[in-house]
Amino acid sequence: MDPELIDRLVVENDTKIVFLIMDGLGGLPREPEGLTELEAARTPHLDGLAAHSVCGLLDPVGFGITPGSGPAHFALFGYDPIKTNVGRGLLSAAGIDFPMSEDDLFARVNFATIDGDGRVSDRRAGRIDTTTNRRICEKLTEEINLGGGIEVFLEPEKEHRALLVLRGKGLSARISDTDPQKTGRKPLTPQPLNPEAKETADLVGNLLEQAGEILADEEQANMILLRGFARYEKIRTLQERFRLKSLAIAEYPMYRGISRLLGMDIHPLTGSLEGQMAALAEQYPRYDFFFIHIKQTDSCGEDGDYDGKTAVIEATDRLLPLILELQPHVLVVTGDHSTPAAMAAHSWHPVPVLVASPLARPDRVTRFGERDCAAGGLSRMPMVHLMGVALAHAGRLTKFGA
Amino acid sequence: MDPELIDRLVVENDTKIVFLIMDGLGGLPREPEGLTELEAARTPHLDGLAAHSVCGLLDPVGFGITPGSGPAHFALFGYDPIKTNVGRGLLSAAGIDFPMSEDDLFARVNFATIDGDGRVSDRRAGRIDTTTNRRICEKLTEEINLGGGIEVFLEPEKEHRALLVLRGKGLSARISDTDPQKTGRKPLTPQPLNPEAKETADLVGNLLEQAGEILADEEQANMILLRGFARYEKIRTLQERFRLKSLAIAEYPMYRGISRLLGMDIHPLTGSLEGQMAALAEQYPRYDFFFIHIKQTDSCGEDGDYDGKTAVIEATDRLLPLILELQPHVLVVTGDHSTPAAMAAHSWHPVPVLVASPLARPDRVTRFGERDCAAGGLSRMPMVHLMGVALAHAGRLTKFGA
Repeated sequence: MDPELIDRLVVENDTKIVFLIMDGLGGLPREPEGLTELEAARTPHLDGLAAHSVCGLLDPVGFGITPGSGPAHFALFGYDPIKTNVGRGLLSAAGIDFPMSEDDLFARVNFATIDGDGRVSDRRAGRIDTTTNRRICEKLTEEINLGGGIEVFLEPEKEHRALLVLRGKGLSARISDTDPQKTGRKPLTPQPLNPEAKETADLVGNLLEQAGEILADEEQANMILLRGFARYEKIRTLQERFRLKSLAIAEYPMYRGISRLLGMDIHPLTGSLEGQMAALAEQYPRYDFFFIHIKQTDSCGEDGDYDGKTAVIEATDRLLPLILELQPHVLVVTGDHSTPAAMAAHSWHPVPVLVASPLARPDRVTRFGERDCAAGGLSRMPMVHLMGVALAHAGRLTKFGA
Repeated sequence: MDPELIDRLVVENDTKIVFLIMDGLGGLPREPEGLTELEAARTPHLDGLAAHSVCGLLDPVGFGITPGSGPAHFALFGYDPIKTNVGRGLLSAAGIDFPMSEDDLFARVNFATIDGDGRVSDRRAGRIDTTTNRRICEKLTEEINLGGGIEVFLEPEKEHRALLVLRGKGLSARISDTDPQKTGRKPLTPQPLNPEAKETADLVGNLLEQAGEILADEEQANMILLRGFARYEKIRTLQERFRLKSLAIAEYPMYRGISRLLGMDIHPLTGSLEGQMAALAEQYPRYDFFFIHIKQTDSCGEDGDYDGKTAVIEATDRLLPLILELQPHVLVVTGDHSTPAAMAAHSWHPVPVLVASPLARPDRVTRFGERDCAAGGLSRMPMVHLMGVALAHAGRLTKFGA
């Protein structure tokens, strides 16, 4: 089924939908015969909710596919994660929550070290620290001058990584990467990949020349390598597709950036799970749709910290009554993908989900966990259809056909 | 999800994947309230494995679709069974394990009887025996001469069926069938279906004239009918798609032929289940992927032999420890389709599957059977995605998107 079929069935009403997303929620047992992180966690509130919900398992992208956070979140919000193939530069910009404009061209930056012959000796500039990164970005942003009304920003990410933004009319993303991918080689000259891109390629060439001069005195980060050129891309917003006035309550840049790409309002940082819940309560009258993003489940999973992940799930469970007392018409609890501590990485395993609503047809699940959800009434379904299920339970989708 | 999405995520490593395929594995109860063949079989090793695996049900082609062995096996190996629509002549050639070349044109042959007026009186030539078939094929192969560097082979199949191969440059498959499909009619003249096919159509006409003369003295098989013209077709191999060095340990021509089409090495015939297991152990260090094909489950199913099918499953179960002691990273046990003895035919029912791997997320299935697998963690999935699931569990698929 085309995930956009639902768009033309959307109707408006006064219902509220809350997505409580524990990043990387799905897990694996730590030892044979053992339990997953979610199964091991003491979660009385989630279990009670599961008993009155319809449960299931979600595939973010497809069977066997391990998703990055970008595609997984697009799927969560009802966007085909394969077709919504935004350029990597744009995801980087979203990832650091950069305030984008329609005139922006993005590229991913690696600071690198080149030797006396101009050959790359370290593609990561000795993994310079983030403070140095920030200082260099400021210097470059200040000193590079391309003329012609083109603005240039360098925005620090972590260590040797940064984002390049060119802002101006008529810029093209059809520019080849300059990262030679191997040490001992000179950075590549940016090439236009079609005739219309020639002017932009020349601008980038000019920028690289200036960057080389400005960075000449740096010990480690004396050059920048560019890849993944991408233009700002307009994605149809949640308002446009589903008529949902939406608020993201997310603490991490990547998720704030993706939410902004999808037209959500972004709540100021709150600094804690409790703060996120308080923000929900406070903003509750003002929006139709709320995206609460909890990052620590994924961080613990990535660190291989089984007990830490379990503890975050339990902490979330303790705060669940704060959501329940608002009585949202639809409350969805799930993750964007699995991050089993046993693998210390994202994985392809499907993600448990519960959809709580007075209109949810109950199944026999009485415990929120992977094995239980496998027998749930939602069965195993593509994550991209979750938004449709939520809208249906909120009475926000009208009948298809006569 | 496009089954070829995984191709660009493939990475190589040292893991081993074993597909143990019991042809026609899925079944039906023999009487109301009864058990299927697999449920009735005593399978302690498969049950023990299921308890540590993720289980499910596979649809070879789609809901309600009864597949032939060709499409079912394409799906098993990750090839879209609907799009991988190789010509019937080519499947016939694969089916008798004919050593194909890129210059080959294939057609399916029926030996037929024509009367004094040249009208077909029996489209199956009284189902001549295979020995007669072989003798006639040898005679035709020896005596037909088309000149112009075109080689002709007639290869016996069973009873009245054979394969015609023309080998030479520039041959076209766009030739109409000559089988009139009804008795009382004359064989049709092969027509070119586009202008480029005219020369080949003339060659086939010439061939049919010679065949008629050579077979004039035969009592029953005095004519050949041709259909399903197909050129050799290059299919991307398992090596090309998944970087898997693959070995087929299969005893029946059809499966050896399909394996060869997909670029697998073909193990010499071993003559027994035990021989197949010994071949696996012996070749284990040399390959990444092993396809063990057990035909007798299907043969018994086709014969309506419920007890026989159950016995083959039990015999396979007794040999399972020989695979387990190799400790493959991923062991998949399933069938290519269902062949319920109660129907004495292939059927559309989904096929039970288990995927055993240290990274399989356990479900609650503790018995390998149709009803148990219906509650498994893999749920019900299209068979074409099984290969992606296997590759994921082997760590051979990298992340999709940032």
